[in-house]
Amino acid sequence: MADERTAQSWDPGWGADFLADFAVLSAIGATPGGGVERQAATAEDGQMRDWFSRWLRDRGFEVRTDPVGNLIGLCELAAGAPYILVGSHLDSQPLAGRFDGAYGVLAGAHAAYRVTEALRAAGTEPRFNLAVIDWFNEEGSRFKPSMMGSGVHTGVLPLAAALATRDPRGISVREALADIGYLGTGTLPEVAGYAEVHIEQGPGMEASGTTIGAVDRTWCANKYEVVVTGEQSHTGSTPMAMRRDALLSAARLVVAVNELTASVGDGELHTSVGELTVEPNSPVVVAREVRLLMDIRSSDSGLNARAFALLEQRIADIEAATRTSIDIVSRSVWASGPFPASGIKLVEEVADELALPRGRVATLAGHDATNMNAVVPTLLFFVPSAGGISHAEREFTRDEDLVAGLSVMTGVLGRLARDGFSY
Amino acid sequence: MADERTAQSWDPGWGADFLADFAVLSAIGATPGGGVERQAATAEDGQMRDWFSRWLRDRGFEVRTDPVGNLIGLCELAAGAPYILVGSHLDSQPLAGRFDGAYGVLAGAHAAYRVTEALRAAGTEPRFNLAVIDWFNEEGSRFKPSMMGSGVHTGVLPLAAALATRDPRGISVREALADIGYLGTGTLPEVAGYAEVHIEQGPGMEASGTTIGAVDRTWCANKYEVVVTGEQSHTGSTPMAMRRDALLSAARLVVAVNELTASVGDGELHTSVGELTVEPNSPVVVAREVRLLMDIRSSDSGLNARAFALLEQRIADIEAATRTSIDIVSRSVWASGPFPASGIKLVEEVADELALPRGRVATLAGHDATNMNAVVPTLLFFVPSAGGISHAEREFTRDEDLVAGLSVMTGVLGRLARDGFSY
Repeated sequence: MADERTAQSWDPGWGADFLADFAVLSAIGATPGGGVERQAATAEDGQMRDWFSRWLRDRGFEVRTDPVGNLIGLCELAAGAPYILVGSHLDSQPLAGRFDGAYGVLAGAHAAYRVTEALRAAGTEPRFNLAVIDWFNEEGSRFKPSMMGSGVHTGVLPLAAALATRDPRGISVREALADIGYLGTGTLPEVAGYAEVHIEQGPGMEASGTTIGAVDRTWCANKYEVVVTGEQSHTGSTPMAMRRDALLSAARLVVAVNELTASVGDGELHTSVGELTVEPNSPVVVAREVRLLMDIRSSDSGLNARAFALLEQRIADIEAATRTSIDIVSRSVWASGPFPASGIKLVEEVADELALPRGRVATLAGHDATNMNAVVPTLLFFVPSAGGISHAEREFTRDEDLVAGLSVMTGVLGRLARDGFSY
Repeated sequence: MADERTAQSWDPGWGADFLADFAVLSAIGATPGGGVERQAATAEDGQMRDWFSRWLRDRGFEVRTDPVGNLIGLCELAAGAPYILVGSHLDSQPLAGRFDGAYGVLAGAHAAYRVTEALRAAGTEPRFNLAVIDWFNEEGSRFKPSMMGSGVHTGVLPLAAALATRDPRGISVREALADIGYLGTGTLPEVAGYAEVHIEQGPGMEASGTTIGAVDRTWCANKYEVVVTGEQSHTGSTPMAMRRDALLSAARLVVAVNELTASVGDGELHTSVGELTVEPNSPVVVAREVRLLMDIRSSDSGLNARAFALLEQRIADIEAATRTSIDIVSRSVWASGPFPASGIKLVEEVADELALPRGRVATLAGHDATNMNAVVPTLLFFVPSAGGISHAEREFTRDEDLVAGLSVMTGVLGRLARDGFSY
C-alpha cells in the first residue's frame, strides 16, 4: 500500500531535482549533528537568502526585499492581476532541524515554478499570478517576537518596533538586516490568498499513517513574559531566612507551570518555559532578577484561561514563600482560529487525486500562515515528522513525504492560479 | 559607649585620609545604584589597578605584577628579610558593593604605609618587611574558579589552567590580563605571614554590637558544577509526555537544593544555586541542556555530607520523573579550617588596646585568607556589614567601623613586622 502510494506521487526527475536543491540548501549553516543553525539575519541566513535569490532569478522570478526583510520572488504571467503567495521561512532555531520552514519555502518555490512553466508552455494566462516568500524571522530565537516578517506584513506588529528590536548582544533588526544586505525597500504585491506546507512537528500523522494533513485549526497559545525580582546578596554568608532568591522563585514557577498539565489532564494542555536568564548569574550571588518566557497552549481558550487562573494562585504562594515578586510584564495570545473550509477541501481533493493518505490536523505551533489567515484566504498543510521531533538536529521527514507534499502544493497552486481562493 | 569607643579608635587626620582615598577608589567602576562593578581584568579593574599602583609608587613601594595578575607593593626596610603580606582584592561581583575586597586592600595599604613610615622615622629596622597585595580575581564571576590569584600562589590551581580559563565571551585570563597591562613577570617575595581585614558580609556582628571580629574558622563549602541533559524539541507541539526538559529538571533541582536547609534545620546549612544557563534558551524550544553551580555550606563537613546524600536521592527521583540526566561534572571543597590561635590572640589584644568591642566569628564566605591559611600563618578579621548585605550595591559599612578596622590592622602589622607570625 505504501509502495503504491509512493509510486503514484513520485515524479522521479522532478522529485530528484527538488531533493538535490534541498540538499544544497541544507548545507548552508549545517551543524555537525546533522541539523542547521541559521538564526534570523545571521551570516548563515544571509548566505541562504543569497542562494535562494539566485535560484529565483535563474528561473525568471523578480526578486524583492521589503523593509522588514521579507524576501519575495514574483512571476507575473497575468499583467496587473493579484498574486497567490506561497512560502514559509528560511531562518532556524539554534541547533535546529533541516526541515522546519526551509522545506516549505523550497517546496513552494518548486511548485510555483512548475505551475508557471506549465502555464507558459500552454500559453495560458491565469487569473492570478504566483509569488514565493521567505518570511523574515519566523523563529524568534534571536529577535523577539517570532513570526516577525508576517506580523509586520499583516499589521499585528508595527514596522518601527520590529526594526528597533535588539538581540541579546544589542544588535537591532535594522542593523542585522543591513549587515546581510536584506534591509529592502521593495513592496509586496496585492495578495489574494496564501498557501504554506510545513512539517507537522508532532507525532500524530506518523502514528496514524497520514501523508497529507490539512490544518483545520490553530491551537491557541497564551504567552507571558515574566520578571521575577529578588534581592542580590552573597550566597555563602546570607542566612537562608534573609534571602530573596529570584532564581529559587523562578524555579518554583517553572515547576508550577509544568504541573498545570497534570491538573487538567495529560495531552489537553501544553505548557513550557524555554527561555530563562538570571542576573547577575554568578555562582556566589543570590540572583536579583530572573526573566523568563512561559506559554500555555491548548485547542480551547477556556482551558488556557482556567490553567492561568490556577497558575495565578500558585504565583501568589511562591511570592510569599520566597519573598520575591513575580510580574507578568507582557502577554500575547494567538486565538484558536479555523482555516477556511475552501482551502482544506482543495488540499483534500488534490491529495485524493494523488491517492495520498490524508487527514485533518490542528497546528499546535504558530506559523506565518497563522498570521496570514487573519487577512486573506489561507491554507496550510503538513507532511509527517519522524517521531514528532522538531527544533532539534534530529528532526526528520522522509524523502517520499517531502515529494508528496511538493506534489500536493503543485496541484494546489495550479488550481489557485486558475480559480483564485475565496472563503 | 559607642561614642567613647569611636573617640578612642578615631584618628581624625589619618582616618580622614583613608576615607578620602576610599571615596576616590569607590568612584572607579561606580554604578548608578551606589555600588561598583569591576569584574576581574575588565577595563574598570585595570583603572583601579592603575590608580592603586600610582598610590603605592607615590609612597615608595616597589610595585610588581606576577604571571597571574597578582599586584603587589613591597616596602623593604630590612634587606633580605621575609615579608608579612597584607591585602585582599580590588575586583568585584557585577553590581556589587564598594566594600567587599577593596576595603581590605586599601586598609592594608594605609596600615602598612603608616607602620613603615613610623619605623623609618624611628630608624628601627624590623625583623620582617611589609607588602600589600591585590589578589587577582577573588570573585570568580567573570572567570572561574574564584580566589584565582591566591589559588595559583598557594598551589591549589595550576598557573596554566588559570591563564587558559575563558569568560562567557571566549576571552581568556591571559588575554584579558594582557589587555589591561597586568600580565606580569614579577615574583612574590618570601612570605612569612598573611593578614587580611574584610567586611563581615553577614548580620552577626552588627546584631551583637561587635566592631572587630577575629575569624577563628572557615565554614566548609562543597561546590558542584552540574550539567542537566535533556532533549531539544518544540515547546508548542511536543506532547508533554514525550519531553525531556532540561530546564524543568534543573528547576526541580534548584528547589531540592533549597529544601535541604529545611530538612537539617534553619541556619545550620546554607545552600544555593546562583548561576544557571539554559541551552538553546529560546522561548519555543524545550531546553536540551542546563549548566548550573550549586553549593552546600555549613560549619560541619559531616552535615554537608549528609545534606549531599539526601540530595543524591532527590536527584535520582528528578532524573526519573523528567527523563533527563543530572551529572555532577566537577566538585570542589573548602575544608572547614581553624585559623591559628596566635593570630586571633594578636587581633584581640590590639582591639582591646583600642577598647573596641570584639568577638570571634566564622567566615561563611571564602576569602584569599582561606587559601593563604593553608601555607603560612594567617589572620583574618572582620568589621560589621549593615544588615549583613553583600554582593549587592546596598552593601554598607560605617566610616567609624572602617577606621576601627584600619586602626587594628595598623597595630597588628606593627607587631608582625617586629615579632613575626608563628603558629
